[in-house]
Amino acid sequence: MSSSEKSCKCGEYPLLKSIKNPVQVQSLGKEELVQLADELRQCIINTVSKSGGHLAPSLGVIELTIALFKCFDFDTDRIVWDVGHQAYAHKILTGRYEQFHTLRHKDGISGFPRMSESHYDHFGVGHSSTSISAVLGMAVANDLDGGGRNCVAVIGDGSMTAGQAFEGLNQAGGMKRKMVVVLNDNEMSISANVGALSSFLSRKLSHPVLTRFKRDFESLLKQIPKIGDDLAMYARRGEDSFKSFFTPGMLFEALDFTYLGPIDGHNTADLIEVFEQVKKLDTPVLVHVLTKKGKGYTPAEENPTHFHGVGSFEPETGMAAKFKGGLPSYTEIFGKTLCQLAAKDDKIMAITAAMPEGTGTDCFRETYPDRFVDVGICEQHAVTFAAGLATMGYKPAVAIYSTFFQRAYDQIVHDVCLQNLNVNFFLDRGGLVGADGATHHGVFDMSFMRHIPNLIYMAPKDEAELARMVATAFNFNGPAAVRYPRGVGIGAIMDKEPSLLEIGEGELLRDGFDGVIITLGSRVWPAVEAVEELDDEYGVSIAIFNTRFLKPLPEKQLLELASRFKRIVIVEENAKAGGFSSAVVEFFVDQDVLDGHHIKRLGIPDQFIEHGTQKELREEIGIDKNGMKNAMLELLDKK
Amino acid sequence: MSSSEKSCKCGEYPLLKSIKNPVQVQSLGKEELVQLADELRQCIINTVSKSGGHLAPSLGVIELTIALFKCFDFDTDRIVWDVGHQAYAHKILTGRYEQFHTLRHKDGISGFPRMSESHYDHFGVGHSSTSISAVLGMAVANDLDGGGRNCVAVIGDGSMTAGQAFEGLNQAGGMKRKMVVVLNDNEMSISANVGALSSFLSRKLSHPVLTRFKRDFESLLKQIPKIGDDLAMYARRGEDSFKSFFTPGMLFEALDFTYLGPIDGHNTADLIEVFEQVKKLDTPVLVHVLTKKGKGYTPAEENPTHFHGVGSFEPETGMAAKFKGGLPSYTEIFGKTLCQLAAKDDKIMAITAAMPEGTGTDCFRETYPDRFVDVGICEQHAVTFAAGLATMGYKPAVAIYSTFFQRAYDQIVHDVCLQNLNVNFFLDRGGLVGADGATHHGVFDMSFMRHIPNLIYMAPKDEAELARMVATAFNFNGPAAVRYPRGVGIGAIMDKEPSLLEIGEGELLRDGFDGVIITLGSRVWPAVEAVEELDDEYGVSIAIFNTRFLKPLPEKQLLELASRFKRIVIVEENAKAGGFSSAVVEFFVDQDVLDGHHIKRLGIPDQFIEHGTQKELREEIGIDKNGMKNAMLELLDKK
Repeated sequence: MSSSEKSCKCGEYPLLKSIKNPVQVQSLGKEELVQLADELRQCIINTVSKSGGHLAPSLGVIELTIALFKCFDFDTDRIVWDVGHQAYAHKILTGRYEQFHTLRHKDGISGFPRMSESHYDHFGVGHSSTSISAVLGMAVANDLDGGGRNCVAVIGDGSMTAGQAFEGLNQAGGMKRKMVVVLNDNEMSISANVGALSSFLSRKLSHPVLTRFKRDFESLLKQIPKIGDDLAMYARRGEDSFKSFFTPGMLFEALDFTYLGPIDGHNTADLIEVFEQVKKLDTPVLVHVLTKKGKGYTPAEENPTHFHGVGSFEPETGMAAKFKGGLPSYTEIFGKTLCQLAAKDDKIMAITAAMPEGTGTDCFRETYPDRFVDVGICEQHAVTFAAGLATMGYKPAVAIYSTFFQRAYDQIVHDVCLQNLNVNFFLDRGGLVGADGATHHGVFDMSFMRHIPNLIYMAPKDEAELARMVATAFNFNGPAAVRYPRGVGIGAIMDKEPSLLEIGEGELLRDGFDGVIITLGSRVWPAVEAVEELDDEYGVSIAIFNTRFLKPLPEKQLLELASRFKRIVIVEENAKAGGFSSAVVEFFVDQDVLDGHHIKRLGIPDQFIEHGTQKELREEIGIDKNGMKNAMLELLDKK
Repeated sequence: MSSSEKSCKCGEYPLLKSIKNPVQVQSLGKEELVQLADELRQCIINTVSKSGGHLAPSLGVIELTIALFKCFDFDTDRIVWDVGHQAYAHKILTGRYEQFHTLRHKDGISGFPRMSESHYDHFGVGHSSTSISAVLGMAVANDLDGGGRNCVAVIGDGSMTAGQAFEGLNQAGGMKRKMVVVLNDNEMSISANVGALSSFLSRKLSHPVLTRFKRDFESLLKQIPKIGDDLAMYARRGEDSFKSFFTPGMLFEALDFTYLGPIDGHNTADLIEVFEQVKKLDTPVLVHVLTKKGKGYTPAEENPTHFHGVGSFEPETGMAAKFKGGLPSYTEIFGKTLCQLAAKDDKIMAITAAMPEGTGTDCFRETYPDRFVDVGICEQHAVTFAAGLATMGYKPAVAIYSTFFQRAYDQIVHDVCLQNLNVNFFLDRGGLVGADGATHHGVFDMSFMRHIPNLIYMAPKDEAELARMVATAFNFNGPAAVRYPRGVGIGAIMDKEPSLLEIGEGELLRDGFDGVIITLGSRVWPAVEAVEELDDEYGVSIAIFNTRFLKPLPEKQLLELASRFKRIVIVEENAKAGGFSSAVVEFFVDQDVLDGHHIKRLGIPDQFIEHGTQKELREEIGIDKNGMKNAMLELLDKK
């Protein structure tokens, strides 16, 4: 790594360099705090411009982070950064300045708070809206321990739309424990916010009922010719009540939180004053802080959605540093295909959970705004809402990342599949996702979906097959799932109109004599390479079978393969436990066809996988071309 | 079935008998509506006294149901009864009066609304808090179709605490579609309600800020000596705003719902008047209806928790009709063991999601109130809250039914297991649950938990082993799951203090020569019976191995079994896909030990299982004693 790449180590940030322990922040003076904010901002921009990462959220909370570290002592106090997109300043201030240049690199520091990484990361995050629940747990434990700790959750207004945040708020209010929720209100999720809460937070005094009441109240005051002292006091107190109540505070006061705010989240002095007050309160407190996503970096302020999570870029201009070589991503192919199909079928709808851009449904939103619904960070609601649409003859596409579908497992089972409704699930970022790491890998979906009755499940080998699977899903009258990886395709030639696949039929991509690799999805083309090299280098002849379907399996074809090949490698980019290879093995055993067969299953082992590039991780786990070659060579006793 | 058992068919209910189509309700007069309510109430009490079922919730909404059918036409309009505990009157009025005596019997009508059962069941339910999401989907579809339908969700105040309900409300308010949410406020979940929302709904004008504001406003009025006409009008309008706003309505108005209420839910005329108004509105409307759970049946009014879901009873007295023979349930054994362990370890805590009685944690609540938390119907929050406690050194037991743990899958993965926290999951009602049917069977948990790294998972063969597993879970430093069935144990002799099990060690309960049955949990003792009968009737000698652990599997012992037995039956009360037998088969294949083996896997097939008694269902599926006998006989070529 060149010295210019280690921007945080080159001494540009003297104050950051001097902070070895976050307690030092408590003794910094006003001007030093300003310098600290500047250095944090520059360090984060420079590092993320090289490593990629969650830039705009982290820039938005620099002053907030500083104020929290100024007022609280997180050796004993507790803090949970909801979703963790905004925790870079926290990382730098808690002893990770020297390592910050390794952000999101393999064996470097994680893009998210992680308990295993630092004593100051009190709760690991990655999926949204868990912070209030976790902090309430800490607050209850603190009370049982005799008190003395402040427990703080920092949560964005976007994360606040998820049901779990409400569950946490509702119980925290009910239990009346000392705890602090900092509402980091930047008026955005990853993309623009949706829902009544969002407009409520921003509309403040504009609600008609509120407006009418305020007007009546003011008129009443005006009609009184002379106001005595007492009356003036009453009026003033009335207005105070009015102000503190007919604002977003109303909602939180209704849930028994003491509401403070809204406060300028870029005014460190104001923040410090409020947090000092908060420490003295023994109730649940909500501090409403207004911040600007991307604050202090013009390109990010102007395009916070793009700079929410970003690849490497030129820090001076914000322009992406390199291009992907022009191949479209699976996400784009999905979005295009969806639009193509929707042009001919006005029952097709698109549902996403706060990620129109991330799931490629933004083009659908432009073309078919009436048939597009962004539900916010509400995966549960997204699936049941889609089920409701389906009962009325609509065909909703629910497009969500594989890892976030985990939150809708019950709704997939109970609301869609049990009722055999025509809802299609599109699982983007299936498999290893790379730098986002353990919280975000989509390596469980085959295991948590395979056992759900009525559902069919496909995974494409390339972008052309993706389009066919999207078309096949909509042509199937029942629930269907299609899972595709993060990243770009291979440049496959697309059908003009995607042809339909036969349900439960795979394809023998290459025949052979000595063994077979059975796989699907992202592992198919690497298997082709493996087999070609095995032929070239060892003169062995290996067949490749792409099942296309995890469910229903191509049973007839699999039986034929088992009758012809004794050496079988089964590969998947999913947990081996209960996943694809598990399904194939179950089938072979149930059919009683294993007789002198030798099978190797390659997939994600029974452990959480850390961050790294997709290539690095696939190699390490042994599900890349070389992993397949080695496995087959072992079966052939060539190794 | 004797004629006295067919109470709904014996002509006691002339009006019910005459209603062939719910549209007939629309033309009934005031007195007939009263008679209808009486007949519905009696019919439901009599039927449930025989079949068991959800009595108190259904009695609470008789008038509400009648008013809805009087005002809406559910041939075109849509209705979703949240969770479905309260839908008996709906069933009876929609053409199922003649079948109502088959309630919850095998091949009879379901205890819940089901789309496959009736044209009037517009959405299947069972798990709570899905109704608003589903109805919003219907409302959006209705708009796309050009409008004309009323779409109604009926949801209890308990269900309103679940995050998904908030997600639905928030989006419905944001989208401003015409739809109706009827809040059926009986001030209870299944048990007493928890959380700030619940106290907010009931406290109405008692909040200090509200009270102060009201007082100031009133004082202001009093200070004005003479009020002119204009001023009087302003004051009145002020008071009106005040009344409609400083009530539960505030919260819903904040979410952009038009709020109407609270309304007496047992006054049919009032309800009708309000619903007639509601039909004219084009906004999201929340109708707040106050009802009494168990209304009209004194035993249920007095003990609504017991009569929420009840077995058969004497209708005259409410006394349980028959006793279980004195054996304790698994639920009770769990609760007792938890208290026993907590007496010696003050870090042990108990968390439940609105079901202290259902999960046996009510005794813990009495003994250790400080260490007990009922989070309400919030499974997601329950798990993350427990994770927060665990980060502080506490050892929370999260006790929830298997089927409801589905809703916390993501939190189990992301908040507990990824962080390897010491949270223990107790999955009550694992396996087939009987009369509650398809929405409630706990037959997926082995499949959705087995692939989660760091987790260990046990299932006891009887109540003594349950106690040992509970103790073992708390002794294990990491996440552990214990799953046990609905119903009573076998009368096993309990340890005085539950002994600890070796992690990942099973037990060979009986040795043999001709084959082995490998199983765990509820299937172990039936396997023993099967093996004894195989010995007696066919003279074959079959071993039985209880793995105790799904994860980690007792690998060494399994290898030994595979080396000794070629004929293996693997049995589980879980989906065969990805479940227990899947794990065993994966292991055998990975170890390459299958060589001339013949394996039969018995478990839940790839379909949803309807209601019936546990015995009926286990028999039909073939996982009972006879199923195991037959499978082994087939392997032995004796059949």
